[in-house]
Amino acid sequence: MAKAHGKTPNMLIDKLNWRYATKKMDPAKSVPQDKVERILEAINLAPTSSGVQPFEVFVVTNPEVKAKLREASYGQAQLTDSSHVIVFAAWDNYTVERIDAVIARTHAERGTPLETLNAYYDGLKAMLLPRDAEVNFGHAARQAYIALGVALTAAAFEEVDATPMEGFDPAKVDEILGLQALGLRSVTLMPLGYRAAEGDWLLGAKKVRKPMSELVTEIA
Amino acid sequence: MAKAHGKTPNMLIDKLNWRYATKKMDPAKSVPQDKVERILEAINLAPTSSGVQPFEVFVVTNPEVKAKLREASYGQAQLTDSSHVIVFAAWDNYTVERIDAVIARTHAERGTPLETLNAYYDGLKAMLLPRDAEVNFGHAARQAYIALGVALTAAAFEEVDATPMEGFDPAKVDEILGLQALGLRSVTLMPLGYRAAEGDWLLGAKKVRKPMSELVTEIA
Repeated sequence: MAKAHGKTPNMLIDKLNWRYATKKMDPAKSVPQDKVERILEAINLAPTSSGVQPFEVFVVTNPEVKAKLREASYGQAQLTDSSHVIVFAAWDNYTVERIDAVIARTHAERGTPLETLNAYYDGLKAMLLPRDAEVNFGHAARQAYIALGVALTAAAFEEVDATPMEGFDPAKVDEILGLQALGLRSVTLMPLGYRAAEGDWLLGAKKVRKPMSELVTEIA
Repeated sequence: MAKAHGKTPNMLIDKLNWRYATKKMDPAKSVPQDKVERILEAINLAPTSSGVQPFEVFVVTNPEVKAKLREASYGQAQLTDSSHVIVFAAWDNYTVERIDAVIARTHAERGTPLETLNAYYDGLKAMLLPRDAEVNFGHAARQAYIALGVALTAAAFEEVDATPMEGFDPAKVDEILGLQALGLRSVTLMPLGYRAAEGDWLLGAKKVRKPMSELVTEIA
């Protein structure tokens, strides 16, 4: 695996090396709408378990709401210095209605017979619906995290800075956005913006990662 | 958000549209080593909570081990038809030793004073270490899912097919790979290979996704 140590030139790898968890964004700079739209499109293209897409995203540009989100996030300045705050909110549970909507959409878009779809999704319902809500929320949250990984890559590809954040009070964020009434729970925040030339202690710091030998075990 | 409906030409979006959860891979085709290495490098570059990287990956090319993984995955043929099976395995818990290794690495790589690092990571330890192992495993698993999202995007960028899989018996996979002794638990599988020209019912099927209006809520 000697060649896996960052020695292979590649556009995507370069972008992933360029990105970092931006600590200070430039409040004077706004991410262009077409870039935001491509990042959102990438989120929608992220694969999810059985194609269910058990999450929604909120794009917050309203200054007052961003200020409230900042309060709910221990005052982290990226919430207000970024131009767009993306909130990933996972389903609080799986329900018949939510899975039926997936069946209806697949039938309408792909023309798969309902009989075939029901044969598959009945099995899925039998697995998911009896489970504890917390287990199902945990599963839905993981799917949102796949989309977060895709979104962070897409942002880097657009040379847009993004900070993945778990350091916030989910109950407060849920309240600010009225998520409970929608059957959603906030799982991660992703401010989008542009790194400030000054004032970011992490800008220019060496990226620290495991040696590949500690990350990867080959079973050949 | 009218422009977000897949109308913006973009290389990464094109690749994400090209990818799909490949159901039938061509057993005669093997993913070149340099592509596998770049996908692994992308996994290592994925951001994680506090930079802890609480997971490892196993790259299985051994035919007998792949056959066992297939048995543990309800016989899904991608496990043996793919050339490489990537297993994402998350830490079963956070420990002092594991976090201290992150501190040591950051100190060695970035030169941050141990005093500064300890001030931050002592707080992290105080939060993580008293928590239930299952909660910590759930958190570690989410970080692995960020890396899964990055990895799926990187595979698509390389035009390598990948199938994200949760349909397996984690206890059996853990046993096959001896994960318990390593303090790891399997969370997702990602076979890498090339789609078979024939025999894949999903190949060529329209990609079904939520309308952007159902995924995204703008708070402007």
